[in-house]
Amino acid sequence: RVKWELLNDAKMNHMAETGIKGIDLYFKNNGIWQYINTARPSGKSNDFLLVGNMNPSMREYKMYLPLYDGVTNLEIGLDSTSNILKPERTNKKPIVFYGTSITQGGCASRPGMVHTSIISRKLAVECINFGFSGNGRMEKPLAELISEIDALFYVMDGTNNMTPEQIHENAIPLVEIIRSRHAATPIIFVEGLLNDRSYLDLKTRNAEVAKNEMLKSEYQEMIRRGFKNIYYIGQAGGKGSDFESTVDGVHLTDLGFSRYADFLLKEFRRIKVTDRKRGR
Amino acid sequence: RVKWELLNDAKMNHMAETGIKGIDLYFKNNGIWQYINTARPSGKSNDFLLVGNMNPSMREYKMYLPLYDGVTNLEIGLDSTSNILKPERTNKKPIVFYGTSITQGGCASRPGMVHTSIISRKLAVECINFGFSGNGRMEKPLAELISEIDALFYVMDGTNNMTPEQIHENAIPLVEIIRSRHAATPIIFVEGLLNDRSYLDLKTRNAEVAKNEMLKSEYQEMIRRGFKNIYYIGQAGGKGSDFESTVDGVHLTDLGFSRYADFLLKEFRRIKVTDRKRGR
Repeated sequence: RVKWELLNDAKMNHMAETGIKGIDLYFKNNGIWQYINTARPSGKSNDFLLVGNMNPSMREYKMYLPLYDGVTNLEIGLDSTSNILKPERTNKKPIVFYGTSITQGGCASRPGMVHTSIISRKLAVECINFGFSGNGRMEKPLAELISEIDALFYVMDGTNNMTPEQIHENAIPLVEIIRSRHAATPIIFVEGLLNDRSYLDLKTRNAEVAKNEMLKSEYQEMIRRGFKNIYYIGQAGGKGSDFESTVDGVHLTDLGFSRYADFLLKEFRRIKVTDRKRGR
Repeated sequence: RVKWELLNDAKMNHMAETGIKGIDLYFKNNGIWQYINTARPSGKSNDFLLVGNMNPSMREYKMYLPLYDGVTNLEIGLDSTSNILKPERTNKKPIVFYGTSITQGGCASRPGMVHTSIISRKLAVECINFGFSGNGRMEKPLAELISEIDALFYVMDGTNNMTPEQIHENAIPLVEIIRSRHAATPIIFVEGLLNDRSYLDLKTRNAEVAKNEMLKSEYQEMIRRGFKNIYYIGQAGGKGSDFESTVDGVHLTDLGFSRYADFLLKEFRRIKVTDRKRGR
């Protein structure tokens, strides 16, 4: 049973409230994180029974908090005959994602289905999500914040909220800031996914292609300047090929996030950054 | 551009408003229906620009109306230099689905992603959706309504809202009513999908298994009584094997509906009911 208080009780017309402000529960089943249930929100104060009628047994659980709202208070209730132990601390370095509303989880149906949560479960590595709806413009203060984390690698996840000029101005300084603290940690730039609508809307398509071309050109300039361990992932295939991965042409559904997670995992393996799983 | 008026302006906390009361637009691209965009609802009266900046060309479009609300008025706006033609009428028989909230589309992110819409696009056959949230109990009046349609085949899609007793009472009379009008049209019974939570919640699991066992037993009784062209589809594998297909353990997300559509298509092909594509 979980009780939680929300900061804003936010609503959006293209994302389920379970994703915006619900809570997901998973448990570890033979080494694999398995979904159990989602606590559905009903207002600022919420109270939901996630699961009952179980065989008594010690299990490892994982809880995902709201994607698009803050939690000001959280209480977890158990049967009076059960108890809860502190989790073990991982000694693996985390993966850091920095990006847009898509990175933040728009529009997963529930918190466990944003790609960073899926990748975290599949790789057994913590993913730290710096996704900012309407933002993610590679700004200097964020670059500084991110570089405070000793990451396995950094993922710059999408450019949808940037102009080509902003990409030109911010991408190389972002790398310089991270490199000033982390000489060799991989930094991965991922192109922005194309809007489904822009298959027909040529003006939108041209604007999106121009951003990705600018990102590619900045990446080539980084390589020319001698920066090492910088990688580039194109958007093609990032959400499959059938144009069914989004709720609005832009934001991913659970289907889209599932495909995007698998796509990024394949790309991470191709560039061999997931092999670097050393302890801190 | 689309303007639409809603009957209820309904809301639910585990389904995006785009799915509850939005409108989806697709176009036919080399014989394949391709998603363009979703009109996002903002209240009882809605107005949304679905796509612009296109190359002028004659295209075939398909629009999906809200899954969980009524539409009392609908207006479609075009450029003043464009025009709209009447669609061609298909001479293929439709597939009729009768079932629960899942059949009705809970909880697809947008109307085009309920399994009946996906199956309709993939088979190029109309799917008539008799999904009733909280209902779908094989009632006699519904059996009579459904049997008025000359279908390619009938799908009895899930038993989640029935007790084993109701299944025992209603399943055979349902077949008798359809058979009184359609001597040989295939009738397919599909088991109810198991709740993800019921992997741990043993009480819920036992209740769900009891329903499916009753359905199986009624199916065997139909066969014993000599009814022909009755088929049975088990729930195993219906939403994949990773427990990630739902928003609340029960209702399918776009990921779940995508898997369920592929699962049913495979089963339909196995029992060879999709080969019967004769004209009316």
